[in-house]
Amino acid sequence: MAPPKLNVGCAGLGRMGKRHAMNFLDRVTYADLVAVSSPDDIELEWARQNLGPFGVSVYKSYDDMLKHEGLEAVVIASATTVHAEQAIKAIDADKHVMCEKPLSTSVEVSQKVVDAASRKKHLKVMCGFSRRFDESYQDAWLKVNSGKIGNPSIFRSQTCDVLDPSGFFVAYAEFSGGIFVDCSIHDIDLALWFLGQDSVVKSVVASGITAVEPGLLKHNDRDNAVGVVEFYGGKIAYLFCSRMMAAGQDDSTEIIGTGGKLTVNAQPMSNLVNIYEAGGIRREIPQNYYERFKEAFVQEANEFTTACLQNLELPMKLEGAVQAVKIGCALQESMVSGRKIYFDEIGSRLEMARL
Amino acid sequence: MAPPKLNVGCAGLGRMGKRHAMNFLDRVTYADLVAVSSPDDIELEWARQNLGPFGVSVYKSYDDMLKHEGLEAVVIASATTVHAEQAIKAIDADKHVMCEKPLSTSVEVSQKVVDAASRKKHLKVMCGFSRRFDESYQDAWLKVNSGKIGNPSIFRSQTCDVLDPSGFFVAYAEFSGGIFVDCSIHDIDLALWFLGQDSVVKSVVASGITAVEPGLLKHNDRDNAVGVVEFYGGKIAYLFCSRMMAAGQDDSTEIIGTGGKLTVNAQPMSNLVNIYEAGGIRREIPQNYYERFKEAFVQEANEFTTACLQNLELPMKLEGAVQAVKIGCALQESMVSGRKIYFDEIGSRLEMARL
Amino acid sequence: MAPPKLNVGCAGLGRMGKRHAMNFLDRVTYADLVAVSSPDDIELEWARQNLGPFGVSVYKSYDDMLKHEGLEAVVIASATTVHAEQAIKAIDADKHVMCEKPLSTSVEVSQKVVDAASRKKHLKVMCGFSRRFDESYQDAWLKVNSGKIGNPSIFRSQTCDVLDPSGFFVAYAEFSGGIFVDCSIHDIDLALWFLGQDSVVKSVVASGITAVEPGLLKHNDRDNAVGVVEFYGGKIAYLFCSRMMAAGQDDSTEIIGTGGKLTVNAQPMSNLVNIYEAGGIRREIPQNYYERFKEAFVQEANEFTTACLQNLELPMKLEGAVQAVKIGCALQESMVSGRKIYFDEIGSRLEMARL
Amino acid sequence: MAPPKLNVGCAGLGRMGKRHAMNFLDRVTYADLVAVSSPDDIELEWARQNLGPFGVSVYKSYDDMLKHEGLEAVVIASATTVHAEQAIKAIDADKHVMCEKPLSTSVEVSQKVVDAASRKKHLKVMCGFSRRFDESYQDAWLKVNSGKIGNPSIFRSQTCDVLDPSGFFVAYAEFSGGIFVDCSIHDIDLALWFLGQDSVVKSVVASGITAVEPGLLKHNDRDNAVGVVEFYGGKIAYLFCSRMMAAGQDDSTEIIGTGGKLTVNAQPMSNLVNIYEAGGIRREIPQNYYERFKEAFVQEANEFTTACLQNLELPMKLEGAVQAVKIGCALQESMVSGRKIYFDEIGSRLEMARL
Repeated sequence: MAPPKLNVGCAGLGRMGKRHAMNFLDRVTYADLVAVSSPDDIELEWARQNLGPFGVSVYKSYDDMLKHEGLEAVVIASATTVHAEQAIKAIDADKHVMCEKPLSTSVEVSQKVVDAASRKKHLKVMCGFSRRFDESYQDAWLKVNSGKIGNPSIFRSQTCDVLDPSGFFVAYAEFSGGIFVDCSIHDIDLALWFLGQDSVVKSVVASGITAVEPGLLKHNDRDNAVGVVEFYGGKIAYLFCSRMMAAGQDDSTEIIGTGGKLTVNAQPMSNLVNIYEAGGIRREIPQNYYERFKEAFVQEANEFTTACLQNLELPMKLEGAVQAVKIGCALQESMVSGRKIYFDEIGSRLEMARL
Repeated sequence: MAPPKLNVGCAGLGRMGKRHAMNFLDRVTYADLVAVSSPDDIELEWARQNLGPFGVSVYKSYDDMLKHEGLEAVVIASATTVHAEQAIKAIDADKHVMCEKPLSTSVEVSQKVVDAASRKKHLKVMCGFSRRFDESYQDAWLKVNSGKIGNPSIFRSQTCDVLDPSGFFVAYAEFSGGIFVDCSIHDIDLALWFLGQDSVVKSVVASGITAVEPGLLKHNDRDNAVGVVEFYGGKIAYLFCSRMMAAGQDDSTEIIGTGGKLTVNAQPMSNLVNIYEAGGIRREIPQNYYERFKEAFVQEANEFTTACLQNLELPMKLEGAVQAVKIGCALQESMVSGRKIYFDEIGSRLEMARL
Repeated sequence: MAPPKLNVGCAGLGRMGKRHAMNFLDRVTYADLVAVSSPDDIELEWARQNLGPFGVSVYKSYDDMLKHEGLEAVVIASATTVHAEQAIKAIDADKHVMCEKPLSTSVEVSQKVVDAASRKKHLKVMCGFSRRFDESYQDAWLKVNSGKIGNPSIFRSQTCDVLDPSGFFVAYAEFSGGIFVDCSIHDIDLALWFLGQDSVVKSVVASGITAVEPGLLKHNDRDNAVGVVEFYGGKIAYLFCSRMMAAGQDDSTEIIGTGGKLTVNAQPMSNLVNIYEAGGIRREIPQNYYERFKEAFVQEANEFTTACLQNLELPMKLEGAVQAVKIGCALQESMVSGRKIYFDEIGSRLEMARL
Repeated sequence: MAPPKLNVGCAGLGRMGKRHAMNFLDRVTYADLVAVSSPDDIELEWARQNLGPFGVSVYKSYDDMLKHEGLEAVVIASATTVHAEQAIKAIDADKHVMCEKPLSTSVEVSQKVVDAASRKKHLKVMCGFSRRFDESYQDAWLKVNSGKIGNPSIFRSQTCDVLDPSGFFVAYAEFSGGIFVDCSIHDIDLALWFLGQDSVVKSVVASGITAVEPGLLKHNDRDNAVGVVEFYGGKIAYLFCSRMMAAGQDDSTEIIGTGGKLTVNAQPMSNLVNIYEAGGIRREIPQNYYERFKEAFVQEANEFTTACLQNLELPMKLEGAVQAVKIGCALQESMVSGRKIYFDEIGSRLEMARL
């Protein structure tokens, strides 16, 4: 008589994979984690010890996991380079898919996932932009949607990571797609959400610097960058991304409308404690993206599960994920070339000469 | 091969009972909700519809639920008047107990629960002061415990409920034990936690008014009250409780030490959104106790479960719950009589004449 | 054709005296500082160098200064012990008086100043409670007065000084009147302002500790104390004062009404700067009373001057200053004796036995 | 024996002129306001009534005022269109000059003021960017200058005016120079201050919209705009300006360094009062630029006066004002043309073709 639960497998058991697996194990009411896969032996050993006792099957091969008896949905939390391939395989195998962002660092490859999904209308395929499931962003969106700030017109958002003095992010930059594709992709997705999912990009322009890590230049990347995205219809998003924050994760957003403004996390904080000490009053802040958004990942998993079980519309369209990658890549290109990039109203690049 | 889970029953399915039941159903990793009980037919019908499909047995009789096969622990969320009786029955039936606060509005009755528990040392019996499980209070406590503010000496805390214009709380006051036993009991428990669980009360004094609800006078209660609790050893807690807040739930705490100060929730907020509108900048705040502390209840349930399964020490001693009731009752008495009440170092009342 | 200006003399050139002198020299539009007096040679030398070039006459004797040709008003910023005597002399010499708080640490002596002033109705005699001139308190008062929070019923206020590790305040305690007369006098004055200047005290009770400076005990003083003042008519003020704040000056106030609440300085700050650094986000706060309220002293001087020149009603009645001293002394007594003190509706002490 | 005071005249008695005149009358310790001028009869009448009684001479002709006996310095607060002409006349007449921003909306005209000043090295000639004198910005600058945030690298600042529903700013836009020259000029000046006064612009790009006032298009202006300024040496300023804020004046700044970040006014507020009411907690904010910065104007007047009297270096170089106009004009041009504008290291425009 127990209600139906969704049988979920998790691909990839790195940092984010472990988190997704534990969320589906513990904190998603209507899902059962039934299988996981990873090519990495250390990750597999972790899974045997931590997930095995709960009856979760552990696979070295993703393809094998896809064949797990009764599997209905897959969470893809593997390396970005295989996101698209694994997503398409899962779709072909008739599984629902929740894929970590980005679908790919390439617009073309991202589009292939959309194409695959469009051939299987009965499946739920979602690219997980976790911020959309954050309680504060959801509250802001309801307020915007109810007209509280009039017509949302200007959007400012930033993703600022704490400085990692190990310089890990230099090596990481080789495959990340660059700071706009890796960090700002969240802000871009939010911009599309708040300004209108069908907003059409008119131009992008970006500038970046290497304030702390000149080694990024060799991967065409920067440690701080600013970008401006113009949309047709008179809306603008402007973005900042950084890898050198001293205090911690500093992700904030402003939505400015014709009748009011909303801020999200303009005053970052870990919790409701303030510390009075010599030197003043201090509050601690989250030290990384996950500390800030960990409840959003749980919410995301629950909403995805419910959509699959009850055949509800997903909270976001897969096409948006391609659009976000497209904008992120254009910003990254503009940052490197120093040139502003223009688009026509059907999304094609315009040459300066034609303007 | 699944790991052991604790089989839990929930007594009472009113407002708090439903919440506890849902938490144990969904959000406690190592617990299974196996049974519930309520004398109320509407509540039982709710349970059949919402819990039945998950295999939860529904009982009209608490005594019958106690006999449920395999039941290991009971959550008591019934009316305050039966807390103690149900707790003692559960202890006698060899069940772990997590009881909503207060154990009773009477010190003597509260003590009987402690006595029962002391005869069954292998059982975990806890009175659930949920704030102790709030992320911010826990963070504050770790900071105090690590010496960050020196010796904690002055403690200020308040429990302020949003005004309920229906006047419900007048009828409620007949059985609640009064504003200090009903509301401030949380602040008193926090005071004991932060100033030292074994702190000995030296005096209490309180004053109250009926600013919005004169009807409370007939139940010897007030709608706003202030109390001061002196402890031997040079520590003071001062408290405010109110039932007429306009903005929402306004529960905040300050812990003042010889080397610093911590505040918890000095700036209440529902989330990280700020609303810029004509008239200024506004933030919404929780509208009731549960909105403010809902994650704390989940944490409480998880910690209780783990302590039962792994035979760990509970995060708080049951004796503290009696001490909190004792202080609350004395404050309530002082508020009504207008007199300060003194205690000697072993806890007996002192008469003024003897001072 | 220049407009009339008020000729002001300043008695006392210690820390506060210098500040008042400079304010009247520079920042009071319609006043001229014409004379100063001090018994202290070092202070006199300072005056000759800093005020002399502006034409200010410098006197060693207060009585001589009172005879200064054209002198119209006196600011009394000398030691508390001579406040009353100097005020009465000035009144007798037909000068307006602005006297630093408190009039005296004795209720009887304070009353003598009121009596003297009542014989000279044409003079403006004011005891300067500077917080009343603070922009934020004035804004709060306008809001309360306009009914924004309904009927103000509960008042909480604190005066918390930064810890002075030199222990200066122990010696100072010998003559200060104690922590309630020295620090909380401001909060008491605010309570009377916000709850109603004619509020009649019903009871006071206080408790104090010596958390950092046991030496205070010999002067019957404490370094931290809490007090509760009940007024007839169902209003309560509760107060905290401390000399051991780590972060700086921490003076905040809450006014709780039947329809809303106002806070003043619940989040102390020096200015609008926030510092993001390893460890979190920090804001600096004022390090002493003057840093927090320096603009209020300027405003006070201007309002006093205008009232004198235009024969306007003063912003506060002199009787209130006596009432504040009375409450402060009673709190101090209660703190030392441990007993609650009761008053009847015409202000006489009630014995417990008669209650 | 009175110390020397600076004899100051004020040109223009419109909104800002009146404020400057009153500041120099009342709140500048070492200045005497001796004369004012205005071509406007209503303004002159105001001056006769409000300044006349203090001995201030009132002139209809600016040229006549310049000949006022003993005049040493002029404050220029007339219409922007005559700023430069009046400044040059004052310099030629050997007067110190404090001129409202901007010197002109034209770079060339602005430069003429600099040229005139450079012929009279003994004169103090300053373009008043008032924010530099704001207590919070000054505190931030001291912290940056002392190395607290490492190397300042990214600068974000915004000037956002409350929506004026009368549409006044449409007519105003005809002569204002546009939103970047009128509003963002302050942010540009701050960028130069915080990133280095000698920073050399590498590129500018801007985008704007008319969200509430399409009438601005006919003056080549917008009601909301975003701009990015790149400097040689790896520094970036990004700016937002708006004329449609609902809550009030919303001017905030972030300075992001390699070792920390400072924010100024990230949480706008009028004062330290918070209002708890149905709907949440609200704080009021300044309703216009002057409410936010009125103390800064007083500080500016005092610092200018002291520099003149004691022949001290001015707090800012006049050349910076030209640089700010240059950047503002380029941003305005980019906003209108949609094109990014590039400069070489000696300040000349680069054509795209040459890049």
